[in-house]
Amino acid sequence: MIDATHDPARQSWVTSANGHADFPIQNLPFGIFSPNGGAPRGGVAIGEEILDLGAALALGLFAGAASDAAQAASGPTLNAFFALGAEPRRALRARLVDLLDAAGQEHATVERHAGALLHHAADCRMHLPAAIGDYTDFYAGISHATNVGKLFRPDNPLLPNYKYVPIGYHGRASSIGVSAGSVRRPNGQRKRAEEAEPSFGPSRNLDYELELGVFIGAGNALGEPIPIGAAAGHIAGFCLLNDWSARDIQGWEYQPLGPFLAKNFATTLSPWVVMPEALAPFRIAQPPRPEGDPAPLAYLMDADDQSTGALDLTLDVLIETPAMRAQGLAPHLLSRGSSRDLYWTFAQLVAHHASGGCNLNPGDLLGTGTISGPTPDSFGSLLELTQGGRAPLTLASGEERRFLEDGDTLIIQGRATRDGFASIGFGACRGTILPAPAV
Amino acid sequence: MIDATHDPARQSWVTSANGHADFPIQNLPFGIFSPNGGAPRGGVAIGEEILDLGAALALGLFAGAASDAAQAASGPTLNAFFALGAEPRRALRARLVDLLDAAGQEHATVERHAGALLHHAADCRMHLPAAIGDYTDFYAGISHATNVGKLFRPDNPLLPNYKYVPIGYHGRASSIGVSAGSVRRPNGQRKRAEEAEPSFGPSRNLDYELELGVFIGAGNALGEPIPIGAAAGHIAGFCLLNDWSARDIQGWEYQPLGPFLAKNFATTLSPWVVMPEALAPFRIAQPPRPEGDPAPLAYLMDADDQSTGALDLTLDVLIETPAMRAQGLAPHLLSRGSSRDLYWTFAQLVAHHASGGCNLNPGDLLGTGTISGPTPDSFGSLLELTQGGRAPLTLASGEERRFLEDGDTLIIQGRATRDGFASIGFGACRGTILPAPAV
Repeated sequence: MIDATHDPARQSWVTSANGHADFPIQNLPFGIFSPNGGAPRGGVAIGEEILDLGAALALGLFAGAASDAAQAASGPTLNAFFALGAEPRRALRARLVDLLDAAGQEHATVERHAGALLHHAADCRMHLPAAIGDYTDFYAGISHATNVGKLFRPDNPLLPNYKYVPIGYHGRASSIGVSAGSVRRPNGQRKRAEEAEPSFGPSRNLDYELELGVFIGAGNALGEPIPIGAAAGHIAGFCLLNDWSARDIQGWEYQPLGPFLAKNFATTLSPWVVMPEALAPFRIAQPPRPEGDPAPLAYLMDADDQSTGALDLTLDVLIETPAMRAQGLAPHLLSRGSSRDLYWTFAQLVAHHASGGCNLNPGDLLGTGTISGPTPDSFGSLLELTQGGRAPLTLASGEERRFLEDGDTLIIQGRATRDGFASIGFGACRGTILPAPAV
Repeated sequence: MIDATHDPARQSWVTSANGHADFPIQNLPFGIFSPNGGAPRGGVAIGEEILDLGAALALGLFAGAASDAAQAASGPTLNAFFALGAEPRRALRARLVDLLDAAGQEHATVERHAGALLHHAADCRMHLPAAIGDYTDFYAGISHATNVGKLFRPDNPLLPNYKYVPIGYHGRASSIGVSAGSVRRPNGQRKRAEEAEPSFGPSRNLDYELELGVFIGAGNALGEPIPIGAAAGHIAGFCLLNDWSARDIQGWEYQPLGPFLAKNFATTLSPWVVMPEALAPFRIAQPPRPEGDPAPLAYLMDADDQSTGALDLTLDVLIETPAMRAQGLAPHLLSRGSSRDLYWTFAQLVAHHASGGCNLNPGDLLGTGTISGPTPDSFGSLLELTQGGRAPLTLASGEERRFLEDGDTLIIQGRATRDGFASIGFGACRGTILPAPAV
């Protein structure tokens, strides 16, 4: 629902927020941060600053449901806040807009406490937004599934279940980290087609995958499915997600039970959780299915498609190599994708996940799967961009890349823009590759 | 290492432990229990009783490392105890043997406090032993992998990677429960070969899988593999595990990323964690690989095989139908398997899991995968016992079963026996099937 919190004319007394491409007053994403030397705590990004929710509570700036929500969001994880569901979250958002509005009734009072309330984001360390109990990665990018399928089955790239089942698998929660950490190249078993036996050593085909992450808000009890019409209400927010993938390890290990060590060495998230309310202007109806595609089965079919539909987000992937850093070159744009290219909506992913009775808990994370568009400039992985490594890319620095090399930094950025609305961004999801441990 | 704690002549003043097939004084498994109306807490099974570790601490019965370990094991989960690693665990075991020994120096003093120390197990409720952060299920039963492979690929049942890679995948931690809970039959997408489209409804092919569970003790940091020689030291203990599986949902959903909703509706564990020290007499060297099989790669090859080797456990699967209960018939033995039929050792599973840098945390759970032997009387699932449902079993009650029906109770029991040693058991892992929710 688009409401007064989306008014593009609204300005904040935190002046760095005005015109900010990611964090204007219309966004207000939540995260966990440490000020220099301080303990991890909940905060809200506003321009180049972070509002400390605990400090605002201490100043008595909240009442009622907004106070309950701020209390739940002020600790070292956002799980308790996510668990509250949508209504307290909306109450807190409305109150935060009031407090930060340059034309707000309490502006003078609040700004007087700016020193206690605000921290320069550049001086803070970000943490994972939640203690992630379980992580599930889907495969909802149909162009990605088609592109990858073509590498193995040129004549029949999509498997027969794809347009019926939101394909997904369980990922590893323990190795999820936050931007801008480093990622150690994994060792593992690799076997080239011409080799008789596998060998153990550093992955030669280290890749990224461009995804969106979805945090679960209120959960469901074991054995009690979530109806499709209620599924969007179980989503607490969104982030960017890099599903680092060792393609050579994956190719050798993945049959018959799916990816394991090829993925579980690291997953990186952007630190700010953008709330569904902030993205309301960028909701779109679920894109119509191509002629001839089956209709979703009833448990995945939502009559009120507009409320649970898709999002229109632009997603950029950039690479910065050590040579680029040395030469002072800007990161090289690898691709620009869109969340419109997901075959399943977020609500469908949630409803499917719980359809057999699996219990989702507050702070659980869903990944969408790699988001690729139909053309190479929108392919969300090097596997696709370089055709499995056969067609190296030439970067702006003149270097070539088949896959990621040690020292490379991979950057995902996401932003929603629409005429008549402030742009809403996610900030960056960055990671830099470290060499593998000695074998 | 076999030591004085394994002396089969040792008797306990808790007389129900003497000759007990599962919980003699030589076992002393750890678990989390609630006495009638009490809060969950750590305890140790001894015969038909449970020793309350917090009560023993309050009586001042521990000192030094044993006290630290008892403290860590006395809370509502065993994670902190598991995190301590092997040495404090051994110290606590040695002290518990002293305290419970009928010939112990402190016998008279300790037995005087029996009312405070002991609870009748039959009056207690058991809980999950640990907060399980991540759950991984392996596929180490080579006969199972062969049997299942034959259903799909009669001429080439084992995939080329099987004898090199300990195949595994990530499971769902949130839906793991403890014996003797009920399990709701899942709804899901199912598609028979002759059907043009899938339909959504109750699984028609609900199955169990006989497995062992392995709890991780001390963990490893992200990016820091666990060498094979150290891997056994990261195991805190063992339990029985039923990996409930909806075969029809699995068959339709599992390509290309592996099982998902077919497995994540429930996993059931036996409540007692049997320590590696209790199983020392039942360690066997890793069974020699069949002629022609490749040697494990170096990162999975342990020169000191005896210390990290396999276990010789007998594993029974029984079914009790509503008709059996009504007629007063004993449960029907479906199969008797052995942990000797695992192709990979527990240490190899741990070392492989961490070999790419994935971090394991205390309380994480590994499943071995279904344990089947070479002959039908040792097949660990109905999928194998009924050849995918084509050859129904006739039970002692005269009933037939292709797969599990509503009201059926599935029971897994595990026990180690060896001449000259007390038998060590796991207790039962039970679960009863409830009907699926209405669609």
